[in-house]
Amino acid sequence: MKHFEEKTTNTQSIFNGKVIDVQVDDVLLPNGKNSKREIVKHPGAVAIIPITQDNKIIFVKQYRKPLEKTLIEIPAGKLEEGESPDITVLRELEEETGYTTNQLQYITSFYTSPGFANEIIYLYETNSLEKVLEPKPLDEDEFVELMELSIGEAEKLIATQEIHDAKTMYAILYLKNKGMR
Amino acid sequence: MKHFEEKTTNTQSIFNGKVIDVQVDDVLLPNGKNSKREIVKHPGAVAIIPITQDNKIIFVKQYRKPLEKTLIEIPAGKLEEGESPDITVLRELEEETGYTTNQLQYITSFYTSPGFANEIIYLYETNSLEKVLEPKPLDEDEFVELMELSIGEAEKLIATQEIHDAKTMYAILYLKNKGMR
Repeated sequence: MKHFEEKTTNTQSIFNGKVIDVQVDDVLLPNGKNSKREIVKHPGAVAIIPITQDNKIIFVKQYRKPLEKTLIEIPAGKLEEGESPDITVLRELEEETGYTTNQLQYITSFYTSPGFANEIIYLYETNSLEKVLEPKPLDEDEFVELMELSIGEAEKLIATQEIHDAKTMYAILYLKNKGMR
Repeated sequence: MKHFEEKTTNTQSIFNGKVIDVQVDDVLLPNGKNSKREIVKHPGAVAIIPITQDNKIIFVKQYRKPLEKTLIEIPAGKLEEGESPDITVLRELEEETGYTTNQLQYITSFYTSPGFANEIIYLYETNSLEKVLEPKPLDEDEFVELMELSIGEAEKLIATQEIHDAKTMYAILYLKNKGMR
């Protein structure tokens, strides 16, 4: 697929934010023409499916400013610079749910929006949760509410679109496909 | 969940592009403090699982500049302003594969990156494909190569991460979960 590559001839930095950077690249297309690509740089993220002893999934309810609405999602968070996803996911699990685990299982990873962003999500699961006595606090600007749901209850929230994001819907399909009821 | 809402006190436009707009909102948090939210506005997109008569899925191989690599994905594309996803998906199917259908089935929709972007993808499937004699051409800056794969072959490409994006991996899990072999 070398012949489809787009060669960068110039990069214009548009924005350097706390979460994202934005740039516009001038590219040389495979047909020799020039075009521009608008690119969002993201540090990458983790998400985890925490499963309780009584076979419920722990979700977080959270206001999502870009959508101006509240979504129910599996716990997730951004990678710090140079941080291994295995570390990030334990921190986010603890901050958002108050649990930790010594049996972390990596499932897969995926790009969320390859057309305009480089965000990748590393997805994990655990069914061995331990309460942390004094869990690390959430980020200052983060507010979440916990919910424990069976897979059937989660499917109902997909129908009402309260669960409406890709990683969480993937997670639920993954569990169903594994035979979880 | 009204109490988790973040009130916008100011919006600063950072960038107005062809594909995305970027803005930074000042928000009033539920605890009375102020913060900033970096937001990517995207027009939304469609994706479709085209299934051939011999039970193969049609994929497109495409260079993704934000990742600097080639991914194999189900056909997809952006909504034009004011356009219904049902229309967009038929156009993208025709442009990218040369097929059309009069049996379009809507599956679901999901937000891809609710933490920083408002992109939503409407996902469809069809197993009733008809060749278009003179299909609409691809966009000027778009170059794709078609591949027809069985679900087992697609799973192998997930293992090698040539299939590595959320919508396509969701689509394959969806088909597996429906019993497609």
